[in-house]
Amino acid sequence: MKTKPQHAPAASPDAALGTRARIVRATSRLMQRQGYEATGIKQISREAGATLGSVYHFFPGGKQELGAEAVRYGDQEFADLLREGLEREQDPAEAVIACTRMLAKDLRDSDWIDGCPITTTALETIGRAPDIQQAVAQAFERWRGIVSDRLRRAGIAEDHARELACTVINTLEGAELAAQVSRSEEPLEIAGRHLARLINSYR
Amino acid sequence: MKTKPQHAPAASPDAALGTRARIVRATSRLMQRQGYEATGIKQISREAGATLGSVYHFFPGGKQELGAEAVRYGDQEFADLLREGLEREQDPAEAVIACTRMLAKDLRDSDWIDGCPITTTALETIGRAPDIQQAVAQAFERWRGIVSDRLRRAGIAEDHARELACTVINTLEGAELAAQVSRSEEPLEIAGRHLARLINSYR
Repeated sequence: MKTKPQHAPAASPDAALGTRARIVRATSRLMQRQGYEATGIKQISREAGATLGSVYHFFPGGKQELGAEAVRYGDQEFADLLREGLEREQDPAEAVIACTRMLAKDLRDSDWIDGCPITTTALETIGRAPDIQQAVAQAFERWRGIVSDRLRRAGIAEDHARELACTVINTLEGAELAAQVSRSEEPLEIAGRHLARLINSYR
Repeated sequence: MKTKPQHAPAASPDAALGTRARIVRATSRLMQRQGYEATGIKQISREAGATLGSVYHFFPGGKQELGAEAVRYGDQEFADLLREGLEREQDPAEAVIACTRMLAKDLRDSDWIDGCPITTTALETIGRAPDIQQAVAQAFERWRGIVSDRLRRAGIAEDHARELACTVINTLEGAELAAQVSRSEEPLEIAGRHLARLINSYR
């Protein structure tokens, strides 16, 4: 007799995910690759291996409700990646460089397709989908908090850490887009060097 | 008798624009505000005050051809804005701060809607629309060239100027998105201070 499958949390890559979690993960992946506008409920149900009825059962608010939940999933996913990268090196400037290397590797491995899970959706929905915009704002806030905490633990003053975290996240976002467009690690490598130099100038 | 209207170039806000130029400008504005996916040929023809027939007459390749042309229009528009900002101050670090102020003002004036004219389209079409992706790559290359030239004229070594220009453009892109999401100038103000500090560290 098989053991009962564990119900993994939404952010887990476990194959035993429940239907709701599979729907959210499929939506997040589609939004990462093609954005919010190009992603339809039918495609989501197909990718998630779920019926249209179950998509509407879990998300009666339809695409915007599901989009906001998928942004929260991408938020968590990128937060995990950020934490992992930032713990790879003891030195905080080197830790940011480690993050740019992780992002560059993930991009190359996906043939430059899988960038930030929420940026495309963020841009597409500004001023047009308040629930999604709020989820995006919370994601950026959380990511800045992770970087800021890491810098403060390395002895950087709170005010500087907060502002540096803002620029670290924004520069990573921009460099990731440039890397995708040019199909090259170079923008992220340069971003890593410059962010490290900037961080070191506050120590 | 009225004088003959001048045929303004595509990048001009002149009301006497020809039909083709009106179509391109309307497409660029719609793509800036809502992205490529949400922008349809019918909406473009309505906004441009042009018939559907004339849209297909000028752009027989349809939406992707028109999208690439609209990216080239946005490229030119942002290049003009960048040149204007960079000439406002003699000091190159102060000039980059002037650019962030111009971007912040334009964003606030548009109620945080009119960000970079091509970023949303760039992200939506990565790996999916080669003509558009090429136009985006050319735009980023041109913008980096403008910043790089400005830094070299201020005495910064060519290699450093080239890499700094890459990070200036990428950080402005990311900060502009963050400003739109948070409906606040702060990310751009912080970006300006940090980019100025980084530039000054190479002088």
